[in-house]
Amino acid sequence: MLNQAQLIAYTDRLAGDLQGLGALLTGPLEGAFGGVHILPFFDPIDGADAGFDPIDHRTVDQRLGTWDDVRAIATTHAVMADLIVNHISARSPQFQDFLAKGAASAHAELFLTLDRVFPDGVTETLLGKLYRPRPWLPLTPVQLADRTRRVMWTTFTSEQIDIDVRSAAGTAYLDAILDRFAEHGIAAVRLDAVGYAIKTPGTSSFMTEETLDFIGDLTARARSRGMEVLVEVHGHWQRQQAIAERVDLVYDFALPPLVLHSLYAGTARRLRRWCEIRPRNAVTVLDTHDGIGVVDVGPDTVDGVGRPGLLDAEEIDHLVEGIHEHSRGTSRLATGVVASNVDLYQVNCTYLDALGGDEDAYLLARTLQVFLPGIPQIYYVGLLAGRNDVDLLHATGVGRDINRHDYDEEEVARDLERPVVRRLLALLRFRNHHPAFDGAWALEPAGDDDAVLTMRWSGHGEVAALTVDLRRRTIAVTFTRDGREHTVDDLADLPDPRTDR
Amino acid sequence: MLNQAQLIAYTDRLAGDLQGLGALLTGPLEGAFGGVHILPFFDPIDGADAGFDPIDHRTVDQRLGTWDDVRAIATTHAVMADLIVNHISARSPQFQDFLAKGAASAHAELFLTLDRVFPDGVTETLLGKLYRPRPWLPLTPVQLADRTRRVMWTTFTSEQIDIDVRSAAGTAYLDAILDRFAEHGIAAVRLDAVGYAIKTPGTSSFMTEETLDFIGDLTARARSRGMEVLVEVHGHWQRQQAIAERVDLVYDFALPPLVLHSLYAGTARRLRRWCEIRPRNAVTVLDTHDGIGVVDVGPDTVDGVGRPGLLDAEEIDHLVEGIHEHSRGTSRLATGVVASNVDLYQVNCTYLDALGGDEDAYLLARTLQVFLPGIPQIYYVGLLAGRNDVDLLHATGVGRDINRHDYDEEEVARDLERPVVRRLLALLRFRNHHPAFDGAWALEPAGDDDAVLTMRWSGHGEVAALTVDLRRRTIAVTFTRDGREHTVDDLADLPDPRTDR
Repeated sequence: MLNQAQLIAYTDRLAGDLQGLGALLTGPLEGAFGGVHILPFFDPIDGADAGFDPIDHRTVDQRLGTWDDVRAIATTHAVMADLIVNHISARSPQFQDFLAKGAASAHAELFLTLDRVFPDGVTETLLGKLYRPRPWLPLTPVQLADRTRRVMWTTFTSEQIDIDVRSAAGTAYLDAILDRFAEHGIAAVRLDAVGYAIKTPGTSSFMTEETLDFIGDLTARARSRGMEVLVEVHGHWQRQQAIAERVDLVYDFALPPLVLHSLYAGTARRLRRWCEIRPRNAVTVLDTHDGIGVVDVGPDTVDGVGRPGLLDAEEIDHLVEGIHEHSRGTSRLATGVVASNVDLYQVNCTYLDALGGDEDAYLLARTLQVFLPGIPQIYYVGLLAGRNDVDLLHATGVGRDINRHDYDEEEVARDLERPVVRRLLALLRFRNHHPAFDGAWALEPAGDDDAVLTMRWSGHGEVAALTVDLRRRTIAVTFTRDGREHTVDDLADLPDPRTDR
Repeated sequence: MLNQAQLIAYTDRLAGDLQGLGALLTGPLEGAFGGVHILPFFDPIDGADAGFDPIDHRTVDQRLGTWDDVRAIATTHAVMADLIVNHISARSPQFQDFLAKGAASAHAELFLTLDRVFPDGVTETLLGKLYRPRPWLPLTPVQLADRTRRVMWTTFTSEQIDIDVRSAAGTAYLDAILDRFAEHGIAAVRLDAVGYAIKTPGTSSFMTEETLDFIGDLTARARSRGMEVLVEVHGHWQRQQAIAERVDLVYDFALPPLVLHSLYAGTARRLRRWCEIRPRNAVTVLDTHDGIGVVDVGPDTVDGVGRPGLLDAEEIDHLVEGIHEHSRGTSRLATGVVASNVDLYQVNCTYLDALGGDEDAYLLARTLQVFLPGIPQIYYVGLLAGRNDVDLLHATGVGRDINRHDYDEEEVARDLERPVVRRLLALLRFRNHHPAFDGAWALEPAGDDDAVLTMRWSGHGEVAALTVDLRRRTIAVTFTRDGREHTVDDLADLPDPRTDR
């Protein structure tokens, strides 16, 4: 993957359509991003899960444009696309054919049913071992046209039917999507929800050895078509480490909560430890189309083993309450609570609201993200320093919509002129073009003040270093240029590669 | 049960509290009702299912009053109360104790879990045989305090935990409620959702032989405490017949859809057949707190046997579409559709709206109800000739709330003066006090005009007869009085027993 920042966006919510997205990237955003993760642009983009339940995964939703539009963006930017591995829409022609014809359907083998997972029947003990992303059982009863009844495996919602990904039909289904991607210039594939794809009776069926083997196999299939692979799994940090060894890229989902914790608590202690052990082949994030991951810093509860997390129970409570307080309670409206904060999966909130709207703290957090090893990925709402969209949340009742604002062109143009956004763009352009970021990274040992963190890149004879003070919420960026060292404490003063070289 | 009309009402939605309900019954409604089914008045009345998920089934919700208030009503009216047999609130102290202590809880035996029903595990075939009132599986995973996981049996919602009614704990639980009822003058017990109470592996677990045995046993326990038993089961008419033999009373849930069908189609053909075969020990209804039962006139789908219903598929389609048309689409807003109308369980709509607001047709329907053998039960919204409450539906999102209007005192007083309500009250008072209704009932053979239906009561030397013309929507009530015969075509002209004798 190109060592430059990557935008992540819903095409329609940021730019109307694919041509609009291309125009933004090569126009006002020029130089700020080397890549773009275009969130699901398949048919349809507005199903039960905002595009993550495609009816036809190989077709571009015509409201956004065509495959040619995708290919056009790919000529200037490395495009990442989602491979929705685990499931398919209940409205897909394949599942509708199964409902109509049952075992006689040509697609019968594509879908997982209860009996295919547990041919000898399932008990409470076996169901109790399953790791579930939702509070209900991953099972949905359906009635076929001939009135026989089946029980489909549905990890997420009853509208998303799980695929038997290792069957011949499942393999062919996924390969056909990969082929389509490769034909249209996709550079990288994000494996969505792949942690749940393999069901192994008697286990949690989440990120088991069998899952890792499948991820390895699927990664090989993508690579053989010239595409890199990013794996999306939320969970304990040691699971991310295990995945990181097998694929090109993993997310650093621990970073958003750890940076918040560090700013709330005014200490870099937890963050420093993570910087030392985190996978380097990471896509760094502060925000995504999902919530702020709490499970990613929590203990491992998948098998009830309870390996400790990156934050302890009390720190997690403070973190979650801190987000709710800073957002004046709006994030609470958008967030489901299961029993206690420690069991909470994600908190839905824009990153700026999680910092109480403090733009200095926000830019400090972004600078930390951008200076850490990895590909910095910037979510479109974060790029425009957007705030919680409580109206949309109320209109749809979907918690995550609080951080999925639907922009119009005028709004984007206006937000791009805001000082906070201009500073963020300056940071990204600096990150993409300063040669030190191709070199080696080092974290300076802790000094007396545990609120202070310094990290340094050195490469091609140049240096770029960052010092943050979490308590004062100040930053200092030191960099060399033409053999001379400069230090700025305002991102607006960073050199602009567009005019500078 | 006293052979007089019975009111069915939510205390709070009709009369504020129990004292208000008593004052209505002995005041403006005097003579109109010999009995009253007080919908769940237990703690709390506003859980997940409008009182049908009690936390404490033996306590009166203090917002309504006390057991003394219930007993006071019982001195003037035969009071019917619900025994919620199948489940208990997830918020009940018993279930909370189970969550906290698991198998060590004193209440562990009270609850049904997956393993207790299927100790050897469950397969799609076994799950496929279950008859379900809801589209999802009747299973809810829970996590106990010690983090072990169990799978509760939940026939209705995840907030209503099914009881193991045949365990010692389940028996003691139900008996304790019956004792409380008997102590406070309850005359009759309505067994709520008892059709689902017994789970027998390999069967539909709905109204099986084992269920009938349990109903027989529970009926004996109620009778031994001096109370009669009404069984609430929606389903194929032959199932009602099987139950009717074992208990005091069943509902005639087929009547509401059949009367609508007859009025829409202008023919008594289907209704006439039902009049000939229907159980006589029935509580007749046109409306209840639930919807208009479609399953009650449909084919038997419980075991996939497909015994034909009282209406055929085309007639059911016309019926359901007819209700939606007459209600100007409001009933459609309130009604969930599963695949097709034939699979539809109930349609939510006031009876008057199902007749397009035609008060003559409405009074014709009520007169038919009242002249059929059985105890005529009148729902409070129907009593006041209420209309679909779309505001409440939108406010709560609960389909059935369209027919659960919350009246204030002024509204009740005003509605009681409406001509349609005054006529209905006149009809009820006539029905309660004319001696012919204690005698024998006969349906006259069909004549040339199949829109015309005549039925006749004879007893104590007196006669009361009804002729309806379904096409013209006219009625004629003929009755004897002091040896002379009178005929009225306006219910307002019926003699008022309060001033008359």
